[in-house]
Amino acid sequence: MSAQTTEARIVRGFRDVEAAEIRRHDAMIATIREVYERYGFEPLETPAFEYTDALGKFLPDQDRPGAGVFSVLDEDEAWMSLRYDLTAPLARYVAQNYERLPKPYRRYATGSVFRNEKPGPARFRQFTQFDADTVGTGSLAADAELCMLAADTFEALGIRRGDYVVKVNHRRLLDGVLEAIGVTAATDPEGTQKLAVLRAIDKLDRLGNSGVFALLGPGRKDDSGDFTKGAGLGADAIAVVMRFVGATAENVDTALDTAESLVASSEVGRAAISDLRQIGALLTAAGYGPDRVRFDSTVVRGLEYYTGPVFEAELTFEIAGDDGTPIRFGAVGGGGRYDDLVARFLGQPVPATGFSIGVSRLQTALAHLKKDEPAAASGPVVVLVMDRGELPKYQALVQTLRQAGIRAEMYLGSSGMKPQMKYADRRGSPCVVIQGSNERASGEVQLKDLVEGAKAAASIKDNKEWKDARPAQITVKEADLVEEVRRIVARHA
Amino acid sequence: MSAQTTEARIVRGFRDVEAAEIRRHDAMIATIREVYERYGFEPLETPAFEYTDALGKFLPDQDRPGAGVFSVLDEDEAWMSLRYDLTAPLARYVAQNYERLPKPYRRYATGSVFRNEKPGPARFRQFTQFDADTVGTGSLAADAELCMLAADTFEALGIRRGDYVVKVNHRRLLDGVLEAIGVTAATDPEGTQKLAVLRAIDKLDRLGNSGVFALLGPGRKDDSGDFTKGAGLGADAIAVVMRFVGATAENVDTALDTAESLVASSEVGRAAISDLRQIGALLTAAGYGPDRVRFDSTVVRGLEYYTGPVFEAELTFEIAGDDGTPIRFGAVGGGGRYDDLVARFLGQPVPATGFSIGVSRLQTALAHLKKDEPAAASGPVVVLVMDRGELPKYQALVQTLRQAGIRAEMYLGSSGMKPQMKYADRRGSPCVVIQGSNERASGEVQLKDLVEGAKAAASIKDNKEWKDARPAQITVKEADLVEEVRRIVARHA
Repeated sequence: MSAQTTEARIVRGFRDVEAAEIRRHDAMIATIREVYERYGFEPLETPAFEYTDALGKFLPDQDRPGAGVFSVLDEDEAWMSLRYDLTAPLARYVAQNYERLPKPYRRYATGSVFRNEKPGPARFRQFTQFDADTVGTGSLAADAELCMLAADTFEALGIRRGDYVVKVNHRRLLDGVLEAIGVTAATDPEGTQKLAVLRAIDKLDRLGNSGVFALLGPGRKDDSGDFTKGAGLGADAIAVVMRFVGATAENVDTALDTAESLVASSEVGRAAISDLRQIGALLTAAGYGPDRVRFDSTVVRGLEYYTGPVFEAELTFEIAGDDGTPIRFGAVGGGGRYDDLVARFLGQPVPATGFSIGVSRLQTALAHLKKDEPAAASGPVVVLVMDRGELPKYQALVQTLRQAGIRAEMYLGSSGMKPQMKYADRRGSPCVVIQGSNERASGEVQLKDLVEGAKAAASIKDNKEWKDARPAQITVKEADLVEEVRRIVARHA
Repeated sequence: MSAQTTEARIVRGFRDVEAAEIRRHDAMIATIREVYERYGFEPLETPAFEYTDALGKFLPDQDRPGAGVFSVLDEDEAWMSLRYDLTAPLARYVAQNYERLPKPYRRYATGSVFRNEKPGPARFRQFTQFDADTVGTGSLAADAELCMLAADTFEALGIRRGDYVVKVNHRRLLDGVLEAIGVTAATDPEGTQKLAVLRAIDKLDRLGNSGVFALLGPGRKDDSGDFTKGAGLGADAIAVVMRFVGATAENVDTALDTAESLVASSEVGRAAISDLRQIGALLTAAGYGPDRVRFDSTVVRGLEYYTGPVFEAELTFEIAGDDGTPIRFGAVGGGGRYDDLVARFLGQPVPATGFSIGVSRLQTALAHLKKDEPAAASGPVVVLVMDRGELPKYQALVQTLRQAGIRAEMYLGSSGMKPQMKYADRRGSPCVVIQGSNERASGEVQLKDLVEGAKAAASIKDNKEWKDARPAQITVKEADLVEEVRRIVARHA
């Protein structure tokens, strides 16, 4: 038979998630949901697939059209793709149901998204996002409130104030800087220079000032010798951009003033500054200071569909990297205003703004924060099978426990006493229920507290002493089974 | 612009799920999870994709090899498919992690599964299943307990005893009947006659006795004139099969005895009867009578991978069909023993058994059962914007409510009073918060109870009387905002 077996292997770039992680994940999702609901957002679930043309030009990997997503050809010859985020399906849903939705429409959504990318370490092709979006309003209060939502969510998850920050920038402020240095639609009709500048700014975190400096100019050679062509700006232009991206690091309180002075010649730049000041006023009035939400001139948010304010939520605490050096955890969420996404379907402007949490990444961070918290003995109570001819009797015992709301099971293997105890240990059982023929005759059961038992075992020297003491083992009447088991379970919950 | 718009349409055979249904779905999933946990099962999440060869010959549509699933070619030229159930991925997971799993391994899983079938009315290509499986034991207690689990789950969901039944049959009992009528591997090497007989039995619900009778013989012409070729059995053989499938309807208490007499000549048949009697003894000892779980000779469970006991969970109450005639709701779950699925990977026998709930279908049934229950006013409290220059002030009010745990939002549209009230109505708000310049000057807010207001409005005759009375509207100090709003929310929860 073994010659014909199929190899059991998980698909590359995907992962199985086991019990402990699922429980943490579910608890986290419940907390995020609670905060999003409190902000008045309503849940929505769209399907895993969308027609590929509905995802359109917003594919994640713009350099390879159609790439980056998983696509299949439908029976009627239309291409359909697995969603790569929750925003594109929202735009399709809103456009399709526009007339009957309350406006503004506020929805949250969570679920798996898929990227058809080369898998790498900690780089998965299926992961979870949790989004909140407000569609149908240009009000900057909608943007401001998403920043507050993000801050409240982190704190609800147990991340202390100061261990996270929500950074706000504005796409048109970046356009203003470009205009101020003479990069406009007229000089750069294809937008390639603009893209190169934005990409350079986006790399500040990774490459530092000197790297950005090189990428704004002729280009940069990395450690491996690979050369990345730069934006080709002149020295004066580079100086303006460097002052702009350095504004936040120099003085967070005056960064917006610095930015304003740099874009004074640009109308879009001045409008963006005005937007950011309005958002700031809303945040201040609601008590959200720069310790939680603040302007940051270096936020670009990739090359996505944003048209106005953009947000990036970052964890600021450090964890030990693989080689022991402390590293910052970094971005765990982001978003911004995307006023053109629904318009693509409806042909009329429908402004919108959203915020998305990378759940899987945030969960890794939380696991680091809470790794020292002790785990409870949450496994099932195991009813041991001492006599296989009496299975119905043991089954009845276990149903009695379950009907009382106690997590319990009968051992379903075919092995003797020792493997059964080992099984109970592996399942993290708080206790086992034992009934041999003697106990059955006298209507009793023995309960062995595995947590206390393990402690006692550590302090007992030899086998004889163990047998005499039978630590943490009690005999109780069958009628008292539920009550006594409940006592042991409660002790270790 | 409109000339270039993309049509907003959902992919055929998929659906969007909106807030009310999501909330019911989540509540249902939580209840099922609670019962499955109580039975000692542990959660597991496998990815959406498996390598197609891991799904192997167990594809849902066996007549068209490779059909029935959504498949894409991976970068390394391996075919991968979206899971069509949760059992095949479990078999792959167990085989891949066999050494380190506790044995028997008991897991539950829930999530979307995908079928690449022709969409039809109420026939979707993505739907939710909720499974429990025990892998690594041949003990019939594992099968018996799944039947109890199913019964407990329905009752936890509010389905009364008598409104559901879990029906148990045995694949090898069907083999025994076939053997007793002379259909064996020797006479039917391709298994086509066996398949035709099983398919005929499976159609009893839909076609009745006469339909099954025809399909066991030469064949059947349906109302449209289409002819289905039958199993081609002789008169004596048909009589035995008809007695077998009729046993349950004739007398549920003696059905198993009848079946036993019919398969007396078959060793596998007798072994199956023994299995079913053991399961019956376990059920009886645990107090699960035939009002909850019972033998049913007509259960076939499709043409899947089952090798032993099979279960089908059915809702027995009637609902009004589209044309008003009462129809039975029918099967909402099923499962059985599949001893060969893991062996396909490991090359060693790994017996297993499982039960799966069709969540989407069960949810439709529950919606019918509970459709008369009143919905709570669960929408957010809406803070109206009376003066757009004071947005920060309104934002602060709404944050005060949220921080007190009250679901609240500021109106984010740009419209006047009337559309704001309409919006609050559509959101199902329990109340709105109103602060004009007068109230602001005196540090007060007005609260309008929308539920009481709607009642009062129904009894008030003219506009003037309305204005004078201002029903369900109170003025409170800003300092009392949280307390007073909480009072109104609690009134309508």
